[in-house]
Amino acid sequence: MRPYNFSAGPAMLPEEVLKQASAEMLDWQATGLSVMEMSHRSPPFESILKQTRDDLRELLKVPDTHHILFMQGGATAMNAIIPMNLLGRKGIDPAIDFVHTGVWSGKSLDEAGKYGNVNIAASSSGMHFRNVPVQKDWRLTANAAYVHICSNETINGNQFHFTPDTGSVPLVSDMSSEMLSRRVDFSKYGVVFACAQKNMGQAGLTVVIVRDDLIGHALPCCPSVFNWKNVADNQSMFNTPPTYAIYICGLVLKWLKRQGGVDRMEQASIEKSSLLYNFIDGSDFYRNDVAADSRSRMNVPFFLADESLNEAFTNEAAKKGILQIKGHRAVGGMRASLYNAMPVEGVRALIAFMQAFQQNHRIDKNL
Amino acid sequence: MRPYNFSAGPAMLPEEVLKQASAEMLDWQATGLSVMEMSHRSPPFESILKQTRDDLRELLKVPDTHHILFMQGGATAMNAIIPMNLLGRKGIDPAIDFVHTGVWSGKSLDEAGKYGNVNIAASSSGMHFRNVPVQKDWRLTANAAYVHICSNETINGNQFHFTPDTGSVPLVSDMSSEMLSRRVDFSKYGVVFACAQKNMGQAGLTVVIVRDDLIGHALPCCPSVFNWKNVADNQSMFNTPPTYAIYICGLVLKWLKRQGGVDRMEQASIEKSSLLYNFIDGSDFYRNDVAADSRSRMNVPFFLADESLNEAFTNEAAKKGILQIKGHRAVGGMRASLYNAMPVEGVRALIAFMQAFQQNHRIDKNL
Repeated sequence: MRPYNFSAGPAMLPEEVLKQASAEMLDWQATGLSVMEMSHRSPPFESILKQTRDDLRELLKVPDTHHILFMQGGATAMNAIIPMNLLGRKGIDPAIDFVHTGVWSGKSLDEAGKYGNVNIAASSSGMHFRNVPVQKDWRLTANAAYVHICSNETINGNQFHFTPDTGSVPLVSDMSSEMLSRRVDFSKYGVVFACAQKNMGQAGLTVVIVRDDLIGHALPCCPSVFNWKNVADNQSMFNTPPTYAIYICGLVLKWLKRQGGVDRMEQASIEKSSLLYNFIDGSDFYRNDVAADSRSRMNVPFFLADESLNEAFTNEAAKKGILQIKGHRAVGGMRASLYNAMPVEGVRALIAFMQAFQQNHRIDKNL
Repeated sequence: MRPYNFSAGPAMLPEEVLKQASAEMLDWQATGLSVMEMSHRSPPFESILKQTRDDLRELLKVPDTHHILFMQGGATAMNAIIPMNLLGRKGIDPAIDFVHTGVWSGKSLDEAGKYGNVNIAASSSGMHFRNVPVQKDWRLTANAAYVHICSNETINGNQFHFTPDTGSVPLVSDMSSEMLSRRVDFSKYGVVFACAQKNMGQAGLTVVIVRDDLIGHALPCCPSVFNWKNVADNQSMFNTPPTYAIYICGLVLKWLKRQGGVDRMEQASIEKSSLLYNFIDGSDFYRNDVAADSRSRMNVPFFLADESLNEAFTNEAAKKGILQIKGHRAVGGMRASLYNAMPVEGVRALIAFMQAFQQNHRIDKNL
């Protein structure tokens, strides 16, 4: 059996996907070629690209009003690419409204400040990012260029459990670590982006879902390759796309369809995260500090009451096949990422280990 | 036996590399993890990254005066990233000198024009890019920001067979399709860049070799993720790098070392390309139009005297296991790319097929 990999990303992939990738490595569907070796302009690769885009649209129910783009550079590049693409629109205020809920939205607003005027419409920084501010407290700018949120903060472990209403101002969301894990009404969003290495495959691919009317307004300084108009007009082939990463994403999507699609993943995410939060909340040995209404179903940071046991915890976990459970250096402690590829058995194994660890180390202390 | 894949990129990979990638797909060196699933901050991936960088430095003999950076976006993104990084230097003329030798240097100069003043120092456009202008005819700008060349034009099939002397002005070279195929004195270059999908693995990874004093001068508009200072200061981990593409690159480099390194690849490239050019030049059925002193050892475009046979040529070639031989749409005809992974047997098989095709279709015409 493979270990349970709780990495926040690059992250666990379904075993079926890896097996298929391994089997097809030297010869994809009797072409004699690895997908890595195919010209991006060849019919086999063009069919992979089209199928992956079609499957994403179907699984996510992306409306016809939105393009799906395959890009590079990860979410960090998007922090610049988004203002470069959205600030050239006529008649807007160059203000960008941010809801600051953690490390990732913080990075996004730092970068956006190079291109426009950042307004922090709401922030939970005073609360150590342990909650998502409710919308009635946001101070939005009328006619802002856009409103940016990070719908799931991978590091801080909070998540939006409501869809903000930004009226006619485009809502932009970094969904890197929750994409494909829950049903989203994309008609409410101007731009959604996600790097692939959480729920969609390997690092080096970024999926961007953008409303058509927001395409074609890039600032002159925007590199051509990151101008959404070029990407959209060329079906994500303005330049050579990350072909193998798109193929792996395609395999993940096929697997996801076999599992029952996004609705099934949403149920599973609720089940997995509830199991873990309930266990943590019922223990005085472990602790999660995020407000109950803002907890992430994807990334569960937690702390041992006795932090001197951290190293023993990760070492003993590894021996039980529970890998990459250490928390992000910005937060400390532990973090369990429960992406789509993590089966509920993995969460049960984690909880069983946490129980045993707690029992063993309580006894140690009592001696 | 695998087919011979003459694609210009993404391109043929060594069978040993693909076999190893396939075998390690579910479990890299008893970690229990696929390389795709490893946190980029985990010790196993950090060791892969370091080894790949060290092997590149050793194979290419990159001097200590230069950084090796792993980036994303391909050569097309670099067309913007380079001026964004080099035009902020104090005391320079914002002129950028270009030597225009084909489609790729053309793309580069179009993009650079968004950030600086482009001067075409020399061009072979009047000669349909069938040669590389000799340096004595170049009109360089004193104190230019940099001089840009494309040392091997993948589409037009020409290659620099001399190292330009640009004095104190940094020389920038797009070596995407010749990297690792010949010995280069990197001390003569300010910046060298190459996408990985020709000679180094899969699409989605760009290798940049940059002289240390050229780092740290980015324009304010440069996205942080593409600012060489951020990339260099963080050992190519400013953001999540394309981890799997770096791993594949590492496997290619290990294979290359087993083959005898860059000097051996240079010998092989001379042998392979000479065989093919000699055959073409000795035939009245096939034609290559590039000037003898400017011919590429990597990409050999050629034409059939009777272009109505093009489709028959590619179809019959495919039946013989000779794949992706069709020319680029901008040039037409055929193109054989002879990257490092192409064995000399592949070139012999291509020539044997071309001879047979010529014989069969001459007979057709005579009937």
